[in-house]
Amino acid sequence: MNTTRELFNVRTPADALQTLLGALHERAPRSAARGDAQAAAGDDAFERVATAHALDRVLAEAVAAPGELPTFRRSTMDGFAVRAADTFGATEGLPAYLDVVDDIPMGHAPRMELARGQCARIATGGMLPAGADGVVMVEATQSVGLTTIEVLRAVAPGENVVQPGEDVRRGDPILPRGHRLRAQDLGGLLALGVTSVLVTRRLRVGIVSGGDELVAPDQAPGPAQIRDINSYTLAALIERDGHLACLAGLVPDVYESLKAVAENALSENDVVILSAGSSVSTRDMTAQVIDSLGEPGVLVHGVSLKPGKPTILGVCAGKAVFGLPGNPVSCMVTYDLFVAPTLAYLSGAATVPRRTLSARLARNIASATGREDYVQVRLQRAAVDGALEALPVFGKSNLIFTLIRADGMVKVPLDAGGLSAGSTVEVVLF
Amino acid sequence: MNTTRELFNVRTPADALQTLLGALHERAPRSAARGDAQAAAGDDAFERVATAHALDRVLAEAVAAPGELPTFRRSTMDGFAVRAADTFGATEGLPAYLDVVDDIPMGHAPRMELARGQCARIATGGMLPAGADGVVMVEATQSVGLTTIEVLRAVAPGENVVQPGEDVRRGDPILPRGHRLRAQDLGGLLALGVTSVLVTRRLRVGIVSGGDELVAPDQAPGPAQIRDINSYTLAALIERDGHLACLAGLVPDVYESLKAVAENALSENDVVILSAGSSVSTRDMTAQVIDSLGEPGVLVHGVSLKPGKPTILGVCAGKAVFGLPGNPVSCMVTYDLFVAPTLAYLSGAATVPRRTLSARLARNIASATGREDYVQVRLQRAAVDGALEALPVFGKSNLIFTLIRADGMVKVPLDAGGLSAGSTVEVVLF
Repeated sequence: MNTTRELFNVRTPADALQTLLGALHERAPRSAARGDAQAAAGDDAFERVATAHALDRVLAEAVAAPGELPTFRRSTMDGFAVRAADTFGATEGLPAYLDVVDDIPMGHAPRMELARGQCARIATGGMLPAGADGVVMVEATQSVGLTTIEVLRAVAPGENVVQPGEDVRRGDPILPRGHRLRAQDLGGLLALGVTSVLVTRRLRVGIVSGGDELVAPDQAPGPAQIRDINSYTLAALIERDGHLACLAGLVPDVYESLKAVAENALSENDVVILSAGSSVSTRDMTAQVIDSLGEPGVLVHGVSLKPGKPTILGVCAGKAVFGLPGNPVSCMVTYDLFVAPTLAYLSGAATVPRRTLSARLARNIASATGREDYVQVRLQRAAVDGALEALPVFGKSNLIFTLIRADGMVKVPLDAGGLSAGSTVEVVLF
Repeated sequence: MNTTRELFNVRTPADALQTLLGALHERAPRSAARGDAQAAAGDDAFERVATAHALDRVLAEAVAAPGELPTFRRSTMDGFAVRAADTFGATEGLPAYLDVVDDIPMGHAPRMELARGQCARIATGGMLPAGADGVVMVEATQSVGLTTIEVLRAVAPGENVVQPGEDVRRGDPILPRGHRLRAQDLGGLLALGVTSVLVTRRLRVGIVSGGDELVAPDQAPGPAQIRDINSYTLAALIERDGHLACLAGLVPDVYESLKAVAENALSENDVVILSAGSSVSTRDMTAQVIDSLGEPGVLVHGVSLKPGKPTILGVCAGKAVFGLPGNPVSCMVTYDLFVAPTLAYLSGAATVPRRTLSARLARNIASATGREDYVQVRLQRAAVDGALEALPVFGKSNLIFTLIRADGMVKVPLDAGGLSAGSTVEVVLF
């Protein structure tokens, strides 16, 4: 029997990833940021950007509230600011009568303090006048002439009012380091006047595509040739995850050529992906090139995973270097399992951006034990009860269009021996 | 009791959205595209972009395969191309002996045809020579000298081979109009040499922020003032959904001012959002302005929804115009329920980009019937069994930081009267 290097030392996906991240730990930007975020601001791993344009960026420092919100007592209703005690016992049958002494303009402080028996017209968001401690909603009042109202229901002190600092207090931690900023986070920061934030720089990821059989997508392939697509799929995934992809071009399966292009890519990028040819010999060449780029070189060569077994993970000169399998399905699965979490880790991000949902498995999936399987699924509504179902889409992993017909993938755990129809599974959408 | 226009004619969220989309139907870009996609290419609702840069764009025309894939018989294994019949009956005890007559180079057509008893070394992705009809994997062979192998297992015709057209056939519909392009879709299109695609143009959405109490985020608010944040939150949501946001600025609560800015925004954008002040009177002013912008004007004023009841939906001069409530939580909920699906509809997109997941509700949620409630939740792992739980985050809807402490929201259906702890709920992440 013919054996190759990749058949030895096969690791579980979790173990393989941990090995890689462990070797990167000390050189990752997050380590530079540790302790003193101010000092880290000068590091080129970080940059300060306008909060309004920081969607999906990862915070490089925790943010605490520089002030409180709201800064004044605000009404939550359209109605009348009152002294709550003036309304105690009021009912529809026995209303309280109050004099309307002011109409509080939005955006301006009230002009006068309420005395007993007085009230002031106020809109949602308006500032309560001194003396007032509650708001009666307009629906619980009735006008009696121009300057008097009947209050038909008692108001408790503080009712329909937001107190200063009730939303956030000065010094409150509001967002942790590593947080990926969402739309409402931008709003919260801006509400406090935080108009810029320190975020981790987007990572530059170089993609080197190897394979004598590849031509560029705008070329007509000759006999036995195919168009390079993994470079573009990877670039789109990298972009989707908030980073910058840099295509280093197509390289023939010649050791010196691949080494030269990979060396250049390593010097110009934070992370390098070698999208290898599909044969064992070119995968071995990829491993040799990675070993040549710097210490420690290849850390993992072969993972107990289908598809994606021949994955290579390495670290060269402190940078992550990946050798991903050539077939399109394996390429996407291994990006998701290894590259995406590494990019998140290097960004100091607390989580990997990933869309998942739960569905009911429509058919049994068989699987060998001792291996994680990723099975592509299509989502559909079950005819019987309308529930969301995941229907396995089986296909050779070198077919591109199984990926296109699928909505996501389901993991069959290492030693599960398969999954049963009817069980609830988590679908990673792609 | 004081009543206002918005208390009449309150519709369910689904009905309100349908009313809006129904009024937009005939003027939406999708209608221009109907029938003849080629004719539509000249319409400025569409543009042709490079496939490599079309991630998340929406296809304006269906794409059929211009050719087949693969274009030649490819091996799916490293091994030997054989005539399957030569291996019939082969076992480890009684192997078949074959002459190795060629080593097929990747990317090149084989130089010779296999005769009986012959085989050729082939790598994964290599082209089968004439005469061969199967591939025996290298692990099922043993070398006997330099030019002979033992085959230890029979191969069926077609085994370990992908046939021409097996992935996709010429003319196959591969992606429908309205499809939002994913990374692998770009790969599939490029594999076929489809290097550009017709997509719907990104929509321009004008945002007009009204309210006497508002100042820009970089200003220090005076007494009774707050910073405008809804404009920026909305802009981020619009950007997240693949469109272009155009901030038209802060406008005081003066009818003529609001009308002038809104008119200008309507002329320069495809869709306009008026982010209204929070009082009933400014909401009524928003409705009057929308009515003044063109026929039919306001279609829906008030929705059976919490938060978000005072939402206004209108169409003016064929364009969607929204009057969204001023408080931040209502603003996000109503964006998600009304604006996002409208933008998807106007883009001709088959689906709204939206992240959801299932979780177990950690506490009961009470709700009035006759109203859809959206309750913010934080996701956590249950201590008892590690399951994903949705913990309601209750808070006044005018607090910004409840949005930041939450991971998503759960819908309590119109007439459910609440949801029980332990039930499975769908969480819309935000």
